[in-house]
Amino acid sequence: MRHVLFAGFLLMATATTGAAQTPSGKPILDAATSDPVTMGWMQGSPPPPDKRIERAVGDHLRFPMTRWSFSHMREFVPTQRVSRGSGEVRAFPRAPRNDIDAVTFTPLGGGAAMTWGQSLDANFTDSILVLHKGRVVYERYFGVSAPDTRHIAFSVTKSFVGTLAEMLMAQGKLDEAAPVSRYLPELAGSGFGNAAVRQVADMTTGIDYSEDYTDTGAGIADLVRANGYSPRPPGYGGPRDIYAYLPTVKPDGAHGAAFTYRTVNTEVLGWLVARAEGKRLADVLSERLWQPLGMACDADWVAADPTGAPFAGGGLNPCLGDLARFGEVMRNGGVANGKQVIPAAVVARIAAGGRREDFAKAHYPLLPGWSYRSQWWVSHNPHGAYTARGIHGQAIYVDPKAEMVIARFGSHPVAANSAFDATSLPAFHALAERLMRAD
Amino acid sequence: MRHVLFAGFLLMATATTGAAQTPSGKPILDAATSDPVTMGWMQGSPPPPDKRIERAVGDHLRFPMTRWSFSHMREFVPTQRVSRGSGEVRAFPRAPRNDIDAVTFTPLGGGAAMTWGQSLDANFTDSILVLHKGRVVYERYFGVSAPDTRHIAFSVTKSFVGTLAEMLMAQGKLDEAAPVSRYLPELAGSGFGNAAVRQVADMTTGIDYSEDYTDTGAGIADLVRANGYSPRPPGYGGPRDIYAYLPTVKPDGAHGAAFTYRTVNTEVLGWLVARAEGKRLADVLSERLWQPLGMACDADWVAADPTGAPFAGGGLNPCLGDLARFGEVMRNGGVANGKQVIPAAVVARIAAGGRREDFAKAHYPLLPGWSYRSQWWVSHNPHGAYTARGIHGQAIYVDPKAEMVIARFGSHPVAANSAFDATSLPAFHALAERLMRAD
Repeated sequence: MRHVLFAGFLLMATATTGAAQTPSGKPILDAATSDPVTMGWMQGSPPPPDKRIERAVGDHLRFPMTRWSFSHMREFVPTQRVSRGSGEVRAFPRAPRNDIDAVTFTPLGGGAAMTWGQSLDANFTDSILVLHKGRVVYERYFGVSAPDTRHIAFSVTKSFVGTLAEMLMAQGKLDEAAPVSRYLPELAGSGFGNAAVRQVADMTTGIDYSEDYTDTGAGIADLVRANGYSPRPPGYGGPRDIYAYLPTVKPDGAHGAAFTYRTVNTEVLGWLVARAEGKRLADVLSERLWQPLGMACDADWVAADPTGAPFAGGGLNPCLGDLARFGEVMRNGGVANGKQVIPAAVVARIAAGGRREDFAKAHYPLLPGWSYRSQWWVSHNPHGAYTARGIHGQAIYVDPKAEMVIARFGSHPVAANSAFDATSLPAFHALAERLMRAD
Repeated sequence: MRHVLFAGFLLMATATTGAAQTPSGKPILDAATSDPVTMGWMQGSPPPPDKRIERAVGDHLRFPMTRWSFSHMREFVPTQRVSRGSGEVRAFPRAPRNDIDAVTFTPLGGGAAMTWGQSLDANFTDSILVLHKGRVVYERYFGVSAPDTRHIAFSVTKSFVGTLAEMLMAQGKLDEAAPVSRYLPELAGSGFGNAAVRQVADMTTGIDYSEDYTDTGAGIADLVRANGYSPRPPGYGGPRDIYAYLPTVKPDGAHGAAFTYRTVNTEVLGWLVARAEGKRLADVLSERLWQPLGMACDADWVAADPTGAPFAGGGLNPCLGDLARFGEVMRNGGVANGKQVIPAAVVARIAAGGRREDFAKAHYPLLPGWSYRSQWWVSHNPHGAYTARGIHGQAIYVDPKAEMVIARFGSHPVAANSAFDATSLPAFHALAERLMRAD
C-alpha cells in the first residue's frame, strides 16, 4: 500500500518535467483521456476490479481516480451536512454569452497564447460558472459533474472559515489582537498559544510545521493522518483527532513576521469559531452563510475524526452554484437577497488584503504583489480582484471592477496551485476585461 | 473492544427480563433519561471524552448513543446521496388534531391500557407523523430530530427495494419465476442460484443463514462485516464487499416452503434491481421514487464497501416526511402529484400480501395471520393494513380503510420489532379507528 496524502503529490516532479508515467507505471492522461465517464469508474454491479476506487488504499486521492472521487467524497469518508435550511434558493438570472470560449490570453511565464476554451482542458476543469453583474453568463459541466454535484473545494474551504472568523471579530466575539490561548487554553503550550487571532487568520504564525505535500513527514501529513482525511499507515500511533494534534505543534520563529501558507492555521481558526459560538462549526456555517445566502445545496463537510470536527482547512464539498453565491455576496459588499448577510466592513477588510511585505517573503513567483487576508488571496491588481483557492483547481475569483465572479471545480493531477495558475489567473483577468468592454 | 453488530443486541436478554444494567454496567435508561440533547452527545469543541460517539469501537451502534447516532449516520460511515432532483417538494395540507395523544389502546399480550402519548416514550420514538386523507394530522419531533433530520430506517429500506423490484417485474425487466442465476450468474453456485426472483423478494429461500442478532457467528453478522456497516474485528479475513459475500451463502432446505426473515435476501434483490437497470441502486431509487414522489430531502444511503454497493437491507436514511410520502403513494394506488408513479398492479400485489401459510411457519406470536410480500409486512386485518418495519422502531404503516399513513423513526434499545410491536401495532390500529369515527 502506497501512502497517499493528497492526489497527485507523487506526480509533481514527473508531471512538471513532462515525464509520461506516474510512479505506478500508468501513463499520465490529459483531460480528455482521463474523463471519468469514459474511464467508467464505479459503474456496474459490481464495478470490475480495475474500475473500483478504494479508500483503504488511497485510490480516492490518486489521479486519475480523483476525476471521479472529488465529486463523490462522501462515499469515501464520513461527512457532516451543512444545511441550507428550507428557504428559497437564491436564483440568478441567465444571460449566456457565446463569445467567452474564444477569449484569448497569454499564460503567466510566457508561452503561446491560449483561448479560454483551451484553458478548461489544460486545467482539468470539472465545472465552471461565471457571473457578470449577477447574471450567469457562462456555465459548463464536464465528466461526472452536474449542477447538484458536491465537489471537494479543498482550500477554498479556508475562505469560508476565514470569513466566519472575520464576522465574529466584527461582532466582538473574537478579538483579533488576543492570544489564541485566551479562547483555547488547550493550545497555551503549543506554538499557537501566544499567537494573535489575526496572525492565525492571516497565516503569519511562527510554527514548526511544513505544508510540503511531497513529504510524508511534513506537518500537513501529520494533520491529515490525525483528522482521518488520509488513510493511516499500519501501526499508526499518532494523534487520532485534530484536538489531539494541534497542541503538539511547536513554535518556530516569530509570529507576524511573514506569511507562510499552512493549513494548520485554519484548523485553529475553525476551532476558534466553534469555541466562540459554542456550536459545531458546520452549524455555524449553516446559520451564518448557507441559510441566509439561499444556497442551492446542502454541503458535505469531511469530518472523519471521532470528535466530529470537520476538516476546516480543506474538507468542504459544496455544489458549484454555491461557490458562486458566496463570491457574489462578497462582490456585493456582503448583501444578498436584500439583506446584509456579512458586515460590509468584513468584506472591505478582506478585499483590502493583508500586508504585501509579509506575503512577499513567501516567494510566489506567479503572484507578485499579492497578499493574504483572513484566508483569502488578494491580487492588488487594477481590478482589486481577490480569490479563494484550492489545490487541483478549485477557485472562487471575485473581480469587483469587472463585476464578475468565477466559480470553478477541477481535478488537475498536480496538488499545487502553481500547476494551473499560469493558465487560470490570466484567463480570469482576460475574461474580466472582455466583459467590461462588452458593456 | 466489544464487537457490536446492531445497537442493543447484547441488551436483549437483560432488557426483556427487566435487569437494570447493560453488560457494561451502565443503567438502562428510559426515553426521558436517554434523551440525546440532555445527554449532550458530540457537543463542544471537542466533546468531552465521555460524550463522544466513536465508530471505531462501535459506539454508534450502542444504546444510548444510538439516540444521537441514528440521526447522524453519515458522520460515521460513507454514504451515497439519493437525489430528490430539483423538482417541487410534494407538500401535504396540515389539519392538526389535538385528540390523538389521548387515544387509548390495550398492548398486545395484555397489560394495562395505554394512551398514544404514552406509547411514544415507551417506544423511544424520535419522530412520528400521521397523514389522514392526505393531510398532516399529527407530527412530533423529539431529542435531536427535526423535519430535515435524516434518520436510519433500518429494514424499512427493504420495502423501498422490494417496491423497486416489483416495478421491474411489472415492466418485464425481471421475471418473478426466473432463477436468480439468470440475472446473476455469479450466484449460480450459491444457495440463491436456483431460487426464483419471487422467492427472494418474499424471503422464502432455503439458505444456510441466520438473522440472529445475538450471534456473532450468524449470517447477518457475516453480512454486515462484509459490507462494512459494522466495524470488523482485528485480523478480519472474511469478504470485504457484498458481492464477495453473497456467493458464499450455501443452500439449506427447499425454496418456497416457508417465510424466513433474512436480510441477505434483500441484498440479492438490490443486486437484481441494479443489474436489471444497469445502474447504481441509489440512482434507480432516485429516478423511480425519490424524484417523482417529490421527496423533501435527499436521502443518505450507507454504502461502506469498496464496490459502492449500498446496504440494501438496512442502510437508507430518509427524512420523516419522505417515509410518509412513500406510504401515501402506496395508499393511493401508486398515484402521487396526479401521476401513476408506481403501477397500480404493483401496489395491489403488495397490499394483497403473500401466502399466509408460509408466514405462519415463522412463528411470530404478535403477528397472527400476517404475511410478507415483496419486503412489506401485510396484516390482513379488517382494514387491510400493511407496513414497512425496521428494528429500533422504524415504520411506515398504511391503513387503506382508514385512509391513514403513519411514519415513525425510533431508537428503542432493543434490536427486535417484537420489543415494541406490543405498544405500536394496537396504537396504530386504535388511531385508525378514531380517525374513521371522527369523520
